[in-house]
Amino acid sequence: MNPQDAPPRRTLPDAEALAAGIRAGQRGALARAITLVESRRPDHRREAERLIGLLLPQTGRAVRVGITGVPGVGKSTTIDALGLHLLEQGHRVAVLAVDPSSSRTGGSILGDKTRMARLAADPRAFVRPSPSSGTLGGVAARTRETLLLCEAFGFDVVLVETVGVGQSETAVADMTDTFLVLMLPGAGDELQGIKKGIIEIADLIAVNKADGDNRPRALAAASEYAGALHVLGHEAGASMRVLTCSGLTGEGLPELWAAILRHRAESEASGALTEKRTHQQVKWMWALVEERLRARLSGDPAVRAELRGLEAEVGGGRLTPAAAAERISRLMGL
Amino acid sequence: MNPQDAPPRRTLPDAEALAAGIRAGQRGALARAITLVESRRPDHRREAERLIGLLLPQTGRAVRVGITGVPGVGKSTTIDALGLHLLEQGHRVAVLAVDPSSSRTGGSILGDKTRMARLAADPRAFVRPSPSSGTLGGVAARTRETLLLCEAFGFDVVLVETVGVGQSETAVADMTDTFLVLMLPGAGDELQGIKKGIIEIADLIAVNKADGDNRPRALAAASEYAGALHVLGHEAGASMRVLTCSGLTGEGLPELWAAILRHRAESEASGALTEKRTHQQVKWMWALVEERLRARLSGDPAVRAELRGLEAEVGGGRLTPAAAAERISRLMGL
Repeated sequence: MNPQDAPPRRTLPDAEALAAGIRAGQRGALARAITLVESRRPDHRREAERLIGLLLPQTGRAVRVGITGVPGVGKSTTIDALGLHLLEQGHRVAVLAVDPSSSRTGGSILGDKTRMARLAADPRAFVRPSPSSGTLGGVAARTRETLLLCEAFGFDVVLVETVGVGQSETAVADMTDTFLVLMLPGAGDELQGIKKGIIEIADLIAVNKADGDNRPRALAAASEYAGALHVLGHEAGASMRVLTCSGLTGEGLPELWAAILRHRAESEASGALTEKRTHQQVKWMWALVEERLRARLSGDPAVRAELRGLEAEVGGGRLTPAAAAERISRLMGL
Repeated sequence: MNPQDAPPRRTLPDAEALAAGIRAGQRGALARAITLVESRRPDHRREAERLIGLLLPQTGRAVRVGITGVPGVGKSTTIDALGLHLLEQGHRVAVLAVDPSSSRTGGSILGDKTRMARLAADPRAFVRPSPSSGTLGGVAARTRETLLLCEAFGFDVVLVETVGVGQSETAVADMTDTFLVLMLPGAGDELQGIKKGIIEIADLIAVNKADGDNRPRALAAASEYAGALHVLGHEAGASMRVLTCSGLTGEGLPELWAAILRHRAESEASGALTEKRTHQQVKWMWALVEERLRARLSGDPAVRAELRGLEAEVGGGRLTPAAAAERISRLMGL
């Protein structure tokens, strides 16, 4: 029997039913929808895209916050505490993660929920580990879609954590409204771990662990950061703020949330938020086109080998980029 | 008569002859080669790509320096003075520019040579205004090729100036080994004009106009910048240095050149230079593929209109990026 003639499989979820379940606030439907979105089966992909299309009118209403920081800065503790604070205020909070290394380590699959124990146990919240796809592009695309599902479900705050592997911060900044960088108290040598360019995509900086004996150091660090940003020409005050907080004690978290809301309100009022989201959508569209293109190019082993060869030749200065581009274009049938 | 049957036009330059002329150090050949490289005629493009391919073994040996800074910082004066200093040291200096706005204003065509009057008049130097193509991608691609022609000709220092429009700094950083940002003396409010992200791609910062009464302010600014960079986690000393100089009096220019050479020597020793150039080449190759792709997509008015429509739909949140990517892929025959 030809695969095309096969009867629809029982396991293929139906986009209409899932959309209705999500709109009705059924947790089971949300979980099944995310499983569908994360599946790489071509028929699942098509159904997932249909599902997102159906839910599109219900999306876009959450406060989307990206959060990063070096390992040890206390991301999970802070997200756990911030999330609980928001639940108490009546918000519905979803926590997602972008960790392109998770497919290798398998670490975050259980890790996220263990680390955010209180939030994960609360029925008003939703904590989802990073999808364990191979590439950052794949992980980010799945997380973006899950973010939309969460919005359609009714979560009004979505926190997207990133572990900072490769370009994952940029990917998260590209799907959120406000990007928060958590820092350790104490500037200078301890900060060498911060990646180049992170400060530039940050909307807010919070020096974490500002509790107990660390408090004076954290305050000093925050003031140093604020000064440094001012010296380097960041618009003072308006768009970039440096705060202190403690995920452990909860100190400063209400102020942090207020700063996030203020950043969002300002960018909404100025039109910057609409512009940002428009740009994010169009960028995502072109990234998907590029993904398809690369998938097609690398789907053929012979083409894949030739691409690797061309990259090596060009990288080694033995072939001009133009000549290589010409050959790739021919491979692509352009 | 069919265009294909037409005899080869007299005006079509021959890649072999031009390559031989450039290797022999003939100025006329270099000028004709650059004109060829900047031409958009398809037959010229093919011949230009052949020419670059022929000269490839003679490229890669110059010190490639990108230079940016806000208007008024004294870029031209500084490049003029730095260039003369290098000529005196026995170097052969080419100055190129990436100005994607030049096709609109027409300003830099005469401007560059006028502004760098002493350097432009010296037979040991070569000053070339920005190609006036429409897009940054086009301008950058032509400048990259001109840079290679200059190297093959024997220039051992290539300074690439950018006016800082759009993404032009990134384009210039992507074709040079060392990226220098010129700053004004006096930090804070005056620096609001510096674009986000520029400091992050800088390898060196020089506070210009450090002469006369401005000197103390320039020194103070340099020290402030160095401190701010340290606070924000830039590796201190090794890769990022902050200097002062004066394009007007020439003070600090030998030290600036020494810092450029030191940065280059360090990145050569660590393997970072090879890695950077390899990455630049491969990135350029994919940019060319993308350019061709977009050219093909926008070459058809119906497709172009559809693309604009899809971008608007996606940007406005009325269509999912996935659905739009699907349609674009179909338009591309993927």
